[in-house]
Amino acid sequence: MILIRDGKIWEGGDGMLSINREALKIVKELLENPELYGVKVERLPSGTTLIDAGLEARGGFLTGLKVTEIAMGASGTVRLTFMDYGGLSLPSIVVETAHPSIALFASQLAGWRIKEGGYSADASGPARALACKPGKLFRRIGYRDEADVGVLLLETNAKPPDEAAVKVAERCGIDPEDLYLVLTSTTSLVGSVQISGRVVETGLFRLDYLGLDPNRVHHAVGYAPIMPPHPDWGRAMGRYEDALTYGGVTSFLVDLESDEELKKYVEQAPSSTSKDYGRPSYEIYRSVDFDFTKIDPALFAPASITLTNLRTGTTYTRGEVNVELLRRSLEQP
Amino acid sequence: MILIRDGKIWEGGDGMLSINREALKIVKELLENPELYGVKVERLPSGTTLIDAGLEARGGFLTGLKVTEIAMGASGTVRLTFMDYGGLSLPSIVVETAHPSIALFASQLAGWRIKEGGYSADASGPARALACKPGKLFRRIGYRDEADVGVLLLETNAKPPDEAAVKVAERCGIDPEDLYLVLTSTTSLVGSVQISGRVVETGLFRLDYLGLDPNRVHHAVGYAPIMPPHPDWGRAMGRYEDALTYGGVTSFLVDLESDEELKKYVEQAPSSTSKDYGRPSYEIYRSVDFDFTKIDPALFAPASITLTNLRTGTTYTRGEVNVELLRRSLEQP
Amino acid sequence: MILIRDGKIWEGGDGMLSINREALKIVKELLENPELYGVKVERLPSGTTLIDAGLEARGGFLTGLKVTEIAMGASGTVRLTFMDYGGLSLPSIVVETAHPSIALFASQLAGWRIKEGGYSADASGPARALACKPGKLFRRIGYRDEADVGVLLLETNAKPPDEAAVKVAERCGIDPEDLYLVLTSTTSLVGSVQISGRVVETGLFRLDYLGLDPNRVHHAVGYAPIMPPHPDWGRAMGRYEDALTYGGVTSFLVDLESDEELKKYVEQAPSSTSKDYGRPSYEIYRSVDFDFTKIDPALFAPASITLTNLRTGTTYTRGEVNVELLRRSLEQP
Repeated sequence: MILIRDGKIWEGGDGMLSINREALKIVKELLENPELYGVKVERLPSGTTLIDAGLEARGGFLTGLKVTEIAMGASGTVRLTFMDYGGLSLPSIVVETAHPSIALFASQLAGWRIKEGGYSADASGPARALACKPGKLFRRIGYRDEADVGVLLLETNAKPPDEAAVKVAERCGIDPEDLYLVLTSTTSLVGSVQISGRVVETGLFRLDYLGLDPNRVHHAVGYAPIMPPHPDWGRAMGRYEDALTYGGVTSFLVDLESDEELKKYVEQAPSSTSKDYGRPSYEIYRSVDFDFTKIDPALFAPASITLTNLRTGTTYTRGEVNVELLRRSLEQP
Repeated sequence: MILIRDGKIWEGGDGMLSINREALKIVKELLENPELYGVKVERLPSGTTLIDAGLEARGGFLTGLKVTEIAMGASGTVRLTFMDYGGLSLPSIVVETAHPSIALFASQLAGWRIKEGGYSADASGPARALACKPGKLFRRIGYRDEADVGVLLLETNAKPPDEAAVKVAERCGIDPEDLYLVLTSTTSLVGSVQISGRVVETGLFRLDYLGLDPNRVHHAVGYAPIMPPHPDWGRAMGRYEDALTYGGVTSFLVDLESDEELKKYVEQAPSSTSKDYGRPSYEIYRSVDFDFTKIDPALFAPASITLTNLRTGTTYTRGEVNVELLRRSLEQP
Repeated sequence: MILIRDGKIWEGGDGMLSINREALKIVKELLENPELYGVKVERLPSGTTLIDAGLEARGGFLTGLKVTEIAMGASGTVRLTFMDYGGLSLPSIVVETAHPSIALFASQLAGWRIKEGGYSADASGPARALACKPGKLFRRIGYRDEADVGVLLLETNAKPPDEAAVKVAERCGIDPEDLYLVLTSTTSLVGSVQISGRVVETGLFRLDYLGLDPNRVHHAVGYAPIMPPHPDWGRAMGRYEDALTYGGVTSFLVDLESDEELKKYVEQAPSSTSKDYGRPSYEIYRSVDFDFTKIDPALFAPASITLTNLRTGTTYTRGEVNVELLRRSLEQP
């Protein structure tokens, strides 16, 4: 029995959690059974492993769940279920984590833009916590991983060139052969699943924007519908954002001085507080010619947010699922 | 770390998926903990292993989930949840697969009638893909498994004689001692779970009947209520069919040339298109003296079917859960 | 392949299930990854291992699920989902077992009061089946475990002193170093999850109280909302009881001589039959000054109970979720 590690009884604490080592366990599941998961695996000249989970590869619901857990540095769990949205039954992803700032901000957040030669991709996942990208965020949450392996998720339409992998490994301070790049396109099913799987990350992002210290959030749980993918990038993105904005339900247990603070945050948090609320996301994108900086940031929030103050037990919920908008999102061409 | 198999990096693809090898992993879980799963294990003289999951053995919800995954050649996953059916809360099974034609048609479909001496049973599960039963179907989907182990699920009230096992092994081209027969009766809880677990298979069967090539279906997901078992075979069967016909919800991602095709299939697919729709299945069975050939085949379909065309993103849903019929099915003596 | 155990093919049966050995597997998961699960591990001088899952440690939803399975002697499974309660979306725990009398009564029931020196705590979990506490119950259900390891769950605000561990080990007939004590406080998130995870135990307890032999219950399944924790013990306890009394849904498959019996049990079973029904539990507690013996025992029951008679298939449901009371429970200061 393994009770003792490194010669002593182990006492837990966030500081010792290696999200890259944890995520690698799930990566290995994909590598050991690529046919089952519908992924394609190849090795770049530098030794970096590419796991295509949605470009040429077909992926699947299960693969989407695994990729979402990888994106969270395997420090949260996800489950597939169905939920009813006013008579509309949709497959849905349930997400929970006891490490919100680490799983959601140090890992799941797409906070690193990979650029190398003509290649560029938005990167999320635990290797961000090796390179500390973006540095400001990592200083705020006070976490970094010092593993000698790295796992990064790229949302992209193309495989990265070897130079990009070498550069990423260098920034992470690891050997290229210890780097695992998981690739998924927005227009694939895995793309849809892993974006709906960002529902509590979206909620934490909104709360952080409103001033709530993410380290004060102890537990997060939520769900969102998994929308059918769309071959057009913009329409796909619109649908998935609608899943969060109009279908996402979240709950956070936070440690706050007062319930006034709690109330202040929850009231400003749900997507319904946005001036852009009420139209399918794709329509909004088009109205600003896909210049996302012109969209009210309050729109990027879950439909419903519940906050519980761990100090007082007080619980507030604001916002709700908007069934009409989910329907319109699905019916839109 | 197992990155390399057979001396090279493995590139996934359905052709290499061995559903018998995958299913055997789950069979082993049952074999390693028969008490926990409530199964009874014995070995026939020829060496074939029988796993009784519902004749003398008690089984359970968990066992039913495992047996369902075995039936799918472990190429899909299932989960237990509860769903609300108009105020009626029922345990329900959620099913997904990224290999619909393999998991559902090459494996889960009860497409092999085992007959040997006086013994007969309907067989489903991955060993069908060794024997290629029925051959016509296997030629259409272009898949066969060449594993040297076989797993078959028998829906039966009696243990098969050794001769039947030997015959099955022979048809599969494997040694009898490499054959694993999982037994379940219709009147048991496992029987109920694994039939509700056929909800997406039922949908694919209907779509195939309507002319949709099953190889064009890339992903399938759905759920159905798990009905309480009934000691009478006909009434049990009626309840479980009601779970699918009046309670089954499915969604398929398909690759079709046009949305006209998509629309044509979805409109004819749900059970509500059947002329027999609207009465509990058991009543229908009695009205034809259990001659199932006299029942409109359109009845054997899920209550609700959603189709998404991967080429266009267009999504249509037809049919819905019929709460009134589910209630009647449960209340029927 | 492990087909053979102790030199022969194993034939299942409840009598051979060692709930301590099964639960230890889950305990080891916690021990091998304390950071991930948010638990703190230490060893007492006698060698007993303490796993703090909610005193100083933070725990989490996942940890709560693991602790619930430990409490059930790993002879049942639990899952996290969300359920809708009249527009109120709450994280919920789904529980099932094919060993109701063992998992729920011989293990999960808090039937052992640990007292040593000034320390006292209510204990549940599989080690109760080593010490046979309480003896009367164990004689009735005819099960005991003879493992040489023991796992006990203590609901407590303080770590037990070494003497308490030594005493527990002695009563269990095992070495203190083979004893694992999992600690959780009522006011923690793990406390909330594991109490909602008692939903089918609560139903079985009620049915047993009404005279139904627990060994006649073959399968149990249910769910309850997971309420946000509260720092005040009484209010926390009130909320969690409300989750069961007003939000708990259960279903049992039983083996009864007649449907008259079935009807008699189900009609008396749900919480709505209690004269105290209709107020938040905390209000009720206060009205009797927390003297729980003054509360109508009929209140300690799930909101909804379904019974199916395995001999006849007859299925009755009584009681229903009370959305209004769940809302009041959450909104109560």
